[in-house]
Amino acid sequence: MQLGIIGLGRMGGNIARRLMKNGHTTVVYDRAPQAVQALVAEGSIGAGDLADLVSKLTPPRAVWVMLPAGAITQGTIDQLSRLMSPGDVIIDGGNTNWKDDVRRGKELAAKGLDYVDVGTSGGVWGLERGYCMMIGGKPETITRLDPIFATLAPGIGNVPRTPGRDKHDPRAEQGYIHAGPCGAGHFVKMIHNGIEYGLMQAYAEGFDILRSAANEGRAEGEKFDFNMADIAEVWRRGSVVTSWLLDLTATALAADEELSEYSGFVEDSGEGRWTIEAAIDQAVPAEVLTAALYTRFRSRQEHTYAEKILSAMRKGFGGHVEPKNSVKA
Amino acid sequence: MQLGIIGLGRMGGNIARRLMKNGHTTVVYDRAPQAVQALVAEGSIGAGDLADLVSKLTPPRAVWVMLPAGAITQGTIDQLSRLMSPGDVIIDGGNTNWKDDVRRGKELAAKGLDYVDVGTSGGVWGLERGYCMMIGGKPETITRLDPIFATLAPGIGNVPRTPGRDKHDPRAEQGYIHAGPCGAGHFVKMIHNGIEYGLMQAYAEGFDILRSAANEGRAEGEKFDFNMADIAEVWRRGSVVTSWLLDLTATALAADEELSEYSGFVEDSGEGRWTIEAAIDQAVPAEVLTAALYTRFRSRQEHTYAEKILSAMRKGFGGHVEPKNSVKA
Amino acid sequence: MQLGIIGLGRMGGNIARRLMKNGHTTVVYDRAPQAVQALVAEGSIGAGDLADLVSKLTPPRAVWVMLPAGAITQGTIDQLSRLMSPGDVIIDGGNTNWKDDVRRGKELAAKGLDYVDVGTSGGVWGLERGYCMMIGGKPETITRLDPIFATLAPGIGNVPRTPGRDKHDPRAEQGYIHAGPCGAGHFVKMIHNGIEYGLMQAYAEGFDILRSAANEGRAEGEKFDFNMADIAEVWRRGSVVTSWLLDLTATALAADEELSEYSGFVEDSGEGRWTIEAAIDQAVPAEVLTAALYTRFRSRQEHTYAEKILSAMRKGFGGHVEPKNSVKA
Amino acid sequence: MQLGIIGLGRMGGNIARRLMKNGHTTVVYDRAPQAVQALVAEGSIGAGDLADLVSKLTPPRAVWVMLPAGAITQGTIDQLSRLMSPGDVIIDGGNTNWKDDVRRGKELAAKGLDYVDVGTSGGVWGLERGYCMMIGGKPETITRLDPIFATLAPGIGNVPRTPGRDKHDPRAEQGYIHAGPCGAGHFVKMIHNGIEYGLMQAYAEGFDILRSAANEGRAEGEKFDFNMADIAEVWRRGSVVTSWLLDLTATALAADEELSEYSGFVEDSGEGRWTIEAAIDQAVPAEVLTAALYTRFRSRQEHTYAEKILSAMRKGFGGHVEPKNSVKA
Repeated sequence: MQLGIIGLGRMGGNIARRLMKNGHTTVVYDRAPQAVQALVAEGSIGAGDLADLVSKLTPPRAVWVMLPAGAITQGTIDQLSRLMSPGDVIIDGGNTNWKDDVRRGKELAAKGLDYVDVGTSGGVWGLERGYCMMIGGKPETITRLDPIFATLAPGIGNVPRTPGRDKHDPRAEQGYIHAGPCGAGHFVKMIHNGIEYGLMQAYAEGFDILRSAANEGRAEGEKFDFNMADIAEVWRRGSVVTSWLLDLTATALAADEELSEYSGFVEDSGEGRWTIEAAIDQAVPAEVLTAALYTRFRSRQEHTYAEKILSAMRKGFGGHVEPKNSVKA
Repeated sequence: MQLGIIGLGRMGGNIARRLMKNGHTTVVYDRAPQAVQALVAEGSIGAGDLADLVSKLTPPRAVWVMLPAGAITQGTIDQLSRLMSPGDVIIDGGNTNWKDDVRRGKELAAKGLDYVDVGTSGGVWGLERGYCMMIGGKPETITRLDPIFATLAPGIGNVPRTPGRDKHDPRAEQGYIHAGPCGAGHFVKMIHNGIEYGLMQAYAEGFDILRSAANEGRAEGEKFDFNMADIAEVWRRGSVVTSWLLDLTATALAADEELSEYSGFVEDSGEGRWTIEAAIDQAVPAEVLTAALYTRFRSRQEHTYAEKILSAMRKGFGGHVEPKNSVKA
Repeated sequence: MQLGIIGLGRMGGNIARRLMKNGHTTVVYDRAPQAVQALVAEGSIGAGDLADLVSKLTPPRAVWVMLPAGAITQGTIDQLSRLMSPGDVIIDGGNTNWKDDVRRGKELAAKGLDYVDVGTSGGVWGLERGYCMMIGGKPETITRLDPIFATLAPGIGNVPRTPGRDKHDPRAEQGYIHAGPCGAGHFVKMIHNGIEYGLMQAYAEGFDILRSAANEGRAEGEKFDFNMADIAEVWRRGSVVTSWLLDLTATALAADEELSEYSGFVEDSGEGRWTIEAAIDQAVPAEVLTAALYTRFRSRQEHTYAEKILSAMRKGFGGHVEPKNSVKA
Repeated sequence: MQLGIIGLGRMGGNIARRLMKNGHTTVVYDRAPQAVQALVAEGSIGAGDLADLVSKLTPPRAVWVMLPAGAITQGTIDQLSRLMSPGDVIIDGGNTNWKDDVRRGKELAAKGLDYVDVGTSGGVWGLERGYCMMIGGKPETITRLDPIFATLAPGIGNVPRTPGRDKHDPRAEQGYIHAGPCGAGHFVKMIHNGIEYGLMQAYAEGFDILRSAANEGRAEGEKFDFNMADIAEVWRRGSVVTSWLLDLTATALAADEELSEYSGFVEDSGEGRWTIEAAIDQAVPAEVLTAALYTRFRSRQEHTYAEKILSAMRKGFGGHVEPKNSVKA
């Protein structure tokens, strides 16, 4: 079928490509003209602005917005909502906060427009592996767009089937679900990312302990000097901790056990934070997901004010003077 | 080659089977005669006691002890060490604390015996998938036993090769590594289990938040009512959180989203605790692995004394009286 | 000076009493007539409704609202804002979210009304000890109300002066501060409560470990059987952990070491949650304050869904079946 | 009474002074002769070595060892045990691990010597405020040494009595307790320090959030710019978070709100770590105490290997390249 796509970055561009490779028609727009040209060269219909894009689509239209969450996405949707007609649907495939989806869904419904939020996982691997999609919106709209989702999804592939799936929604094992009403898609994607943070931190701590293995008082020949690359590799087969994140870790460690290209400064995105806010709203203890987020906060500072407060107290009660050089070599 | 196996439970029995299926000879002993008989029926040579087992092996002997860690394993190894001869090797495949391995390695070396510690992952799936093994001991001993390890390991299977592995030890991608001297095998396995706890808890918290999704103030038709089974399933394909633990979760949820057969009481084993001790010994912050352990501690109590202390303080400063019924329905 | 007070519960009633005891005039209202009558018997001027209260005050009026945060407080302030005149001031002494203060300050300013937010600590002890107050609003308004704050505050008392305070604002050592513009008072109070949770949890965990002291393998006469009441008491003098919260704990433990009147169910209020939201907004790692909050969440459930997920995974990979009885006796 | 004191550092020297000021006789030794001379000038009897010290004491002797925990203390006690006679008592007032006390108590008992472990809190303030002491050992020995403990303890002072204390051991409100058999004193002191870490971290996080208060999108005149010194001060009077640690914080902040003399590098001592080991041994969840310890571990590194693992994964799945400059200015 036909899909308008706005935003042709890493994600949007590959979504267009995967759709075209499977016989769909795409009408594309990006504020960078060369991004549009590149896709046109691969078979897309290019648009010069939003109005042009809308005019090149046949009603009922479907436009997938794949832009940075926040003001940019909101502004684009606002503009689209003035250009599109009742019965058209706007799809937000970015990393929007689910509360914005709930609000937007209502606002657009008031204009007769449909709104669908799609949490999209797959990163740079999506073109090849397909995109895992968690979708929120009205059932009939999701059904109408099914050809798009079915194409973008990874499909059942060579992943073994889960016993007992026959009685459940078949879309899940194709790699996409209709999670619920507006906001539900991004909510599930948010939790996905929260879990991702926790999983990553679990591996990270484990490798850190391995690397720091204490050898104090051990004789030569009895010391531990673990090979990080081999450990990551061996766990990929037959162990309980096998995962795609471990595969990626094994790749990075096979290239350089020291990870010397990485500074240790770790960004976080909105979903990790919103996950904790949801946990707190719902009074769910989420120690691991929260600790994983805080580690990232801490990684971006040389020292916290909190740490200085500790040293000030220690001096106060014990006369302890901490070393002036701030960190270990 | 020939291997003595002591302890024919879930793990030991299947290890014998996997070896025999691949042409090795096994001499087996278990204090339960019927366990020995069962293996004999499948091709093993049975032994009536430890002395009998040792006498039925050709020097230099190799005996794999697959028993509960602690006193039972230690007692068995003590006995074996009196029955075996210089050049023989004792393999501990159980969940022993690596510090015991270090000590034992020295004690047995003093008697001319070799000692090898094998951290074995694979659980009930090992017979079919093979066992992921992390091995500690002297290089020449590990090399001599290689036919055993190569057979027990999962092999490269259909897991995609990690780019850049060619320059590394080929055993890792077969599913076993020589991690270092005595104790190194169980140290790496210990960290494996520590990570396992963290991964499990990350998923668990995520599903808990999904399940508790707040619907306060939401209109009918806008409420979230997530399908846990479909969410676990969809993440198995193309998402960042794909893992074997997720596969198992998807299986459990496909059978019963309520998980009503589980009480919520969660055991922990030594490795999770020892991982935290190692972290503390080495001054490595391990928030996530620790939080995962503490969750299990907490799951096994109705209320902690700590919680009563909190209520007592709250009454003291604010006159707050907590509800007498202890938990939410 | 003259102050209107709305809400004559534990806090509001005692605020009126402390003011009257020190020569101020109070005009009081509560929806429960007997609460008004009780204060009138002690010297207050009673009001029958908000309009009556406003009419009995001389402009420029000052009205202190001491009600449950949220809809009740908001509704009362909305009503007051229609009854009061430019130059009057509304004081919110409750546990309002600072974001509501910021909004309200602007809304009331548009009507010519002043707004002051006061975070008030002191609980049931305030009448006797005085109230520690953290105040947000315009400097000139805070100055005008100073007689009220100075009376309600604990004063310098017998707490030793902090060295070097002479160069700082003298109000702080009297027990009240002007923390900043609207919202600043409740922000500081919010953090105060966040810290309170952390402090409480630190003591609670310590006493829990003491009480659970492991005696495994210890001979009779070598076992630990700690006296909680004596330990709390001894730390009150000369130790580093001396505090008012410890005083309260010592009182509770002196009465009953078992704390058998407490179920272990622990409530939390908004401030603890908002503190974590502020930490996350500002990317400040706040492990301890968060863990303290999560403990309370957990205390109110028999088991979490998260724990069942763990058991389901454990059964999946290891065949582990957890005990069916959910908790230890 | 008469007491031998070995180790005349900050703690040992002041213990001698406080005893002499109250009429006790001290025989002192330190490997630094000038430390001995200084005490002799204040009235102590000096000793040239351990044998000399023992010879100058009248049986049954009591010797207080106040040295760094570990090898130095152990070596000194070993030497003393060869010089002393049945009925004599060795007191370890340092920061010894309680497990060493248990072992030592037995070893010394075999030689007819008594052993007493004293957890001593009070730091540099002990001379003036007295020392809070948690004591382990045999009841009759503790009773014999009571004059020493009663003198060193802070006494009831001007701290208000806890209601209901009359029916309890009167020593606790003097500031010392007999906690149980050998090891019990240091166990309670260990938990004291574990709690101390948690309390400190709670304040530290709170002040960190205050200092980082987000002002994004706030108009001039509406921004928060909290005064740390005033906030610490105001909480000292009438608030729930009043404590001695807060007093010390207020002092440090009154001198310099920036705490610019502190780097943020924070040491930890054994007790904090042992507390967590005890928690894990006893399966007590101790989230807050553990998080407080881990913060210190983290404060001493520029970046952890764990953080680099995170960045490597992020690059692997999302192509994310973290900023090369490692931390925020």
